Amino acid sequence: MTIANNKPPISDKQHIIDERRDRIIAAARICFRQHGFHGAGMAEIAALSHLSVGQIYRYFTNKESIIEEVVHRIVKQRVRLMLDNDNDLDRIADDLAGNSLWGGGGEEHINQVLMLEVAAEATRNPRIAQILADEDAELFQEGCTMLLQIYPEMKYDEAARLAELLAVLSEGTTLRVLTRQQHGKHGELQKIYRQIFATVFPTRLKTGSD
Amino acid sequence: MTIANNKPPISDKQHIIDERRDRIIAAARICFRQHGFHGAGMAEIAALSHLSVGQIYRYFTNKESIIEEVVHRIVKQRVRLMLDNDNDLDRIADDLAGNSLWGGGGEEHINQVLMLEVAAEATRNPRIAQILADEDAELFQEGCTMLLQIYPEMKYDEAARLAELLAVLSEGTTLRVLTRQQHGKHGELQKIYRQIFATVFPTRLKTGSD
Repeated sequence: MTIANNKPPISDKQHIIDERRDRIIAAARICFRQHGFHGAGMAEIAALSHLSVGQIYRYFTNKESIIEEVVHRIVKQRVRLMLDNDNDLDRIADDLAGNSLWGGGGEEHINQVLMLEVAAEATRNPRIAQILADEDAELFQEGCTMLLQIYPEMKYDEAARLAELLAVLSEGTTLRVLTRQQHGKHGELQKIYRQIFATVFPTRLKTGSD
Repeated sequence: MTIANNKPPISDKQHIIDERRDRIIAAARICFRQHGFHGAGMAEIAALSHLSVGQIYRYFTNKESIIEEVVHRIVKQRVRLMLDNDNDLDRIADDLAGNSLWGGGGEEHINQVLMLEVAAEATRNPRIAQILADEDAELFQEGCTMLLQIYPEMKYDEAARLAELLAVLSEGTTLRVLTRQQHGKHGELQKIYRQIFATVFPTRLKTGSD
């Protein structure tokens, strides 16, 4: 694990490590996106991140640990988005109707594709299944926390049930959007989601703007 | 495309073709399930179906056309299940809470895994994306037809919107069940789905058994 003969100061070393890990993750996202996990090779990830394969193994022990970091960063970003949410359930309904709880744009599209690839891989790779379960548990926990902030009097079991409903709607929306035509029109789904939320969430925070 | 020198009668020939195609599809399902589309080779599919690779190419021009037939058969089965449904929306709600619109058991689990693999592959393979879109359009159409049978006075747009909601819930449930822990308890999700259905579907067919 020697990095150089003339060792730079610790802060510089950490900076180099962080920068290289970022570059590897960015390259891996592109390779996984284009070829799937099995089609993406360490040599290609190395070439795209302008590092040698040997250098990559200094930062990640194998392809699975790169996947782990990719998933970890996506989930960290989603948790941040959830914390930034101003606890507005109508906005959540509108975001679902608008195709994603997690914002739009190219990066989110790639996040969705990568998470779908992770899910498919998890069905035959216990290590990936464990990574996905761990990260999902964290996201789910944050969802429950968000709901308990909106409804301090809510029991945990009810918050968990509603968080699970949000998870089903979010994952289902991802699959529908990514792989199929959207048959329903945006505005109509918006109305239906607001209707559902008004029904299943307690009334006190309904904004009445439906 | 010669099959033999002493040609059997047409009905026998068709029987042989059907039986071999069935065997190839059964073998492909196992290979795709275990290794994904990229990991599964024609040689392995051939070995498992007790045919030569050359024989397989008589029935399917490439791996994608095998995938097409796998998806086609899954969707055909789902359409059949939908037609057999006695138009009971409460039962649909309970099936969703019970983890699948399409029944349980090992074969349905494999169907779900294969459809997830197809969805992931569709994000980078336009041919697979087209296969998925075509089959989904058929399933979606059947969903609309089912709803219009339950509610003859419903407008097509509303039926399409509600069919899309069922699709989102169904796909989301598949992803949640396959790859993550189910945090919500079965009974509680059942209650929430019945509550949602009672809200978004017209009242006349509510069974009142909630």
